[in-house]
Amino acid sequence: MAKHIVIYDTTLRDGMQGIEINYTLEDKILIAKKLDELGVDYIEGGFPLSNEKEAEFFKRIKKEKLTTAKVVAFGSTRKPGKKATGDAHIEALLDAQTEAVIVVGKSWIKHVTDVLRTSPEENLEMIYDSISYLKSEGREVFFDPEHFFDGYKDDPDYAVKTLQAATEAGASCLVLCDTNGGTLPHEVSEIIGALPKEKLAPIGGHFHNDTGNAVANSLMAVLAGATHIQGTINGWGERCGNANLCSIMPNLMYKMGYKLTCGDRIKTLTSVSRFVAEKANIIPDKRQPYVGEAAFSHKAGQHVDVLIKAEELMEHMDASLVGNKRRIILSELAGKSTLVKKLSKYGEFTKDSPEVAKLTELLKEKENEGFEYEAAEASFELLILQVLGLYKPLFSLENYHLESFKTGRADSKTLGKLFLTVEDTEVMGASVCIGPVETLDAALRDALGEKYPFIKEISLIDYRVRVLNPEDATAAKVRVFISSRNHVGETWDTVGVHKNIIEASWQALVDSYEYYYNTYVINR
Amino acid sequence: MAKHIVIYDTTLRDGMQGIEINYTLEDKILIAKKLDELGVDYIEGGFPLSNEKEAEFFKRIKKEKLTTAKVVAFGSTRKPGKKATGDAHIEALLDAQTEAVIVVGKSWIKHVTDVLRTSPEENLEMIYDSISYLKSEGREVFFDPEHFFDGYKDDPDYAVKTLQAATEAGASCLVLCDTNGGTLPHEVSEIIGALPKEKLAPIGGHFHNDTGNAVANSLMAVLAGATHIQGTINGWGERCGNANLCSIMPNLMYKMGYKLTCGDRIKTLTSVSRFVAEKANIIPDKRQPYVGEAAFSHKAGQHVDVLIKAEELMEHMDASLVGNKRRIILSELAGKSTLVKKLSKYGEFTKDSPEVAKLTELLKEKENEGFEYEAAEASFELLILQVLGLYKPLFSLENYHLESFKTGRADSKTLGKLFLTVEDTEVMGASVCIGPVETLDAALRDALGEKYPFIKEISLIDYRVRVLNPEDATAAKVRVFISSRNHVGETWDTVGVHKNIIEASWQALVDSYEYYYNTYVINR
Repeated sequence: MAKHIVIYDTTLRDGMQGIEINYTLEDKILIAKKLDELGVDYIEGGFPLSNEKEAEFFKRIKKEKLTTAKVVAFGSTRKPGKKATGDAHIEALLDAQTEAVIVVGKSWIKHVTDVLRTSPEENLEMIYDSISYLKSEGREVFFDPEHFFDGYKDDPDYAVKTLQAATEAGASCLVLCDTNGGTLPHEVSEIIGALPKEKLAPIGGHFHNDTGNAVANSLMAVLAGATHIQGTINGWGERCGNANLCSIMPNLMYKMGYKLTCGDRIKTLTSVSRFVAEKANIIPDKRQPYVGEAAFSHKAGQHVDVLIKAEELMEHMDASLVGNKRRIILSELAGKSTLVKKLSKYGEFTKDSPEVAKLTELLKEKENEGFEYEAAEASFELLILQVLGLYKPLFSLENYHLESFKTGRADSKTLGKLFLTVEDTEVMGASVCIGPVETLDAALRDALGEKYPFIKEISLIDYRVRVLNPEDATAAKVRVFISSRNHVGETWDTVGVHKNIIEASWQALVDSYEYYYNTYVINR
Repeated sequence: MAKHIVIYDTTLRDGMQGIEINYTLEDKILIAKKLDELGVDYIEGGFPLSNEKEAEFFKRIKKEKLTTAKVVAFGSTRKPGKKATGDAHIEALLDAQTEAVIVVGKSWIKHVTDVLRTSPEENLEMIYDSISYLKSEGREVFFDPEHFFDGYKDDPDYAVKTLQAATEAGASCLVLCDTNGGTLPHEVSEIIGALPKEKLAPIGGHFHNDTGNAVANSLMAVLAGATHIQGTINGWGERCGNANLCSIMPNLMYKMGYKLTCGDRIKTLTSVSRFVAEKANIIPDKRQPYVGEAAFSHKAGQHVDVLIKAEELMEHMDASLVGNKRRIILSELAGKSTLVKKLSKYGEFTKDSPEVAKLTELLKEKENEGFEYEAAEASFELLILQVLGLYKPLFSLENYHLESFKTGRADSKTLGKLFLTVEDTEVMGASVCIGPVETLDAALRDALGEKYPFIKEISLIDYRVRVLNPEDATAAKVRVFISSRNHVGETWDTVGVHKNIIEASWQALVDSYEYYYNTYVINR
């Protein structure tokens, strides 16, 4: 029987310490439901003492009837020299009315003496009292000894004593925490390996990524005997982040053969990752292991021929196991076999099909103009639809006209107007904004909004510009990429190329709307 | 004596396989120079056989006289059934005229039989012949057995035979490559631990990040006996990237006590990381270990009080050891000693000089607006001149007005006019071009050309745009960098920030001309 590892998510508590991350209460509820669907064992919902929003989460989540995950409230041991009963931290934990709670405490002697300014013995009492009181109130209690690894290196006997105090008080797991994130994988092995585990409650691990090793540290902890791992979706958290559950879960399950509660539901991992990114308002990391857009990408050419012959020789696993997709990246080197593969979802094609020849020709032409589809698959999909005669344009442009002006005393503005023909009707749009691309987009939305309400589902989330022939400086051709996202968090990328940055942006903008129209809206 | 580990950078070869990464030849030269300043041991410059640009790099870099790093050309073993002499791959390696070369070969038996479609014996001959011929031509040769770890798991005896063939042929290092990126840290330990290392050339490691463990795998390889590690700056490379040298180097040096050639020069690591990001036109990852903007960030409050009391209780290391800065979020402190250093060419200043206080204030204000001077020192120089009262403006702007238009039948054009006051005289400029920045530049040159003939010495050689708050999409603030060059090849960089890309470009454009005027022309 494969050993079972408990997955404990702290996206909503420790993850909230990350720069630029600030989930609303509504976001937190939605993320918790996604995590429950994914099948994590525990969801740390927040620090109820810290503010109203945190406390409110626990009331709201009770109504959601999660089916897999237990919600956990986070707090710390009681204050020195006081009782656990009536302590603000402890009472806030009880008020959260969760099945489980986690109590952070000190295990590094220097933190006891220099930060808490109390005695080593009193700290042990604080751990024991806090946990045993919470246990007596019917809670499952986890102990989170902060700075455990630094503490162990400094004074192993005392660090172990804190674990013993928590064990005696009835903690159901001792989640060793690398608070500063400076511990390396071999040290995790050695330290967990040396603990008197037979005398202790089960061991868990909570790692930060300050040395780039949070994932490896989690795996090493499991190999050394830990049965509970804490982390966050996308690895976001304070400083360099927490251990990334999007890497740890597939590593444990598919590479190391452990059993996770999620089972097959791990196939939602990619969509959970992107959902959290959308709520965090952070562009998903394309290079992220397992769930990133580029995680299973391959450059075209001979490489792809091998891939078609024998996948297991070129890929470390099947992308669909985590709900991701293989991507055949297009480039000047694109072989016909790549194009056949790309076309396969529209029917049966071979290297000799006229559509493949036509697409090859078109691709070559576009790439000569400076288009690049590697990071703009949505624009490439539109080319395929054109070649297959399936493409439906949204409108035809009559003209656009933008005016940007600035005086010595007043800041710049841009005024835009455009005329389109939409299914034989002439429509116009107008707008005044600051920059030209923003102005064009607003005018286009103004023109199309009434006829095509789906436009409101789309937001443009990234805009990148690259100069193709910098030696021509400001007269150079530019390539613009736009990333778009819909209301449910799906993203796509489009490209435009022109010597005029405005026209290049216009192309990428129109491609974004047309791609969405052709692939999402028409088939609804 | 601490053991020495060789650092081999492949940013310019394997790193180029990363999505969205495409360095120009000029970028590659500049990056190689930065890597040399940092003090890596080897720089893999490219794959000379693949195209002209790659081959050209090796000619250009010879003229740069690197002081620390050796340049390496990348290629593969000879074709089956042919001789090494005259083989296109091998000859391209020799033509690159580098001191060292790296030869990729097969070590997974299935790749030999199913991809190469040759015999196990012939593959060993290919490895032996290729390496011994390159050795006989005076090159230092590294062997890169691709898919080594998968190959070893499948058929350890054959995988080891390929290493023996390379050793016998005179390879100076066997760089075990985890091509698919699916190998975990404990497997790296076990496999390298089991190799008959006493009969083999020194071992190296080349890891990919598909499981999120490329850094840990590199450290585990070193602990198991490897003495050579390959990686890229920022970990960018194919799919999820290569092992990140920005994490590996400080881990090896500061956490594990190994000796690296760079020594103290590791303090430039943060600036090298950001320089490469700028050239790749990728937003630097704030959460990146060691070199990210958030790597040593602390939220204000109690946490910071502890930090002030005892840094070693809250931080895993001193940020300045890698050239990064601690950031106290909410009250950021500018590095006064850096500013004193910057000002020193204009006179004697100390941390208490009023000019330093004024510059600190101005810098903080500008950085809050989104300006960044790390890659735009010319714009920063103009700030210094302003603070010192030495700045001489070229002109004052009365107004500019641009019109960009396009019809359904005709391509886009932009028409521009501007009015300036130059030394009490009103001058105007006008132009018709395609894009708005080109049009503004042409109108500006039209207005200034007669009065300031030096304008003709300047050409704008690069133009880069970065969106600062992509969540606002087309309404986001953009930062524009312009690189300029004069008639004798000196270059400088300027920056502009605005929600209107045209205005941001205008700022960077004006800064470029004013910087040249103030620092080159006035003192002639």
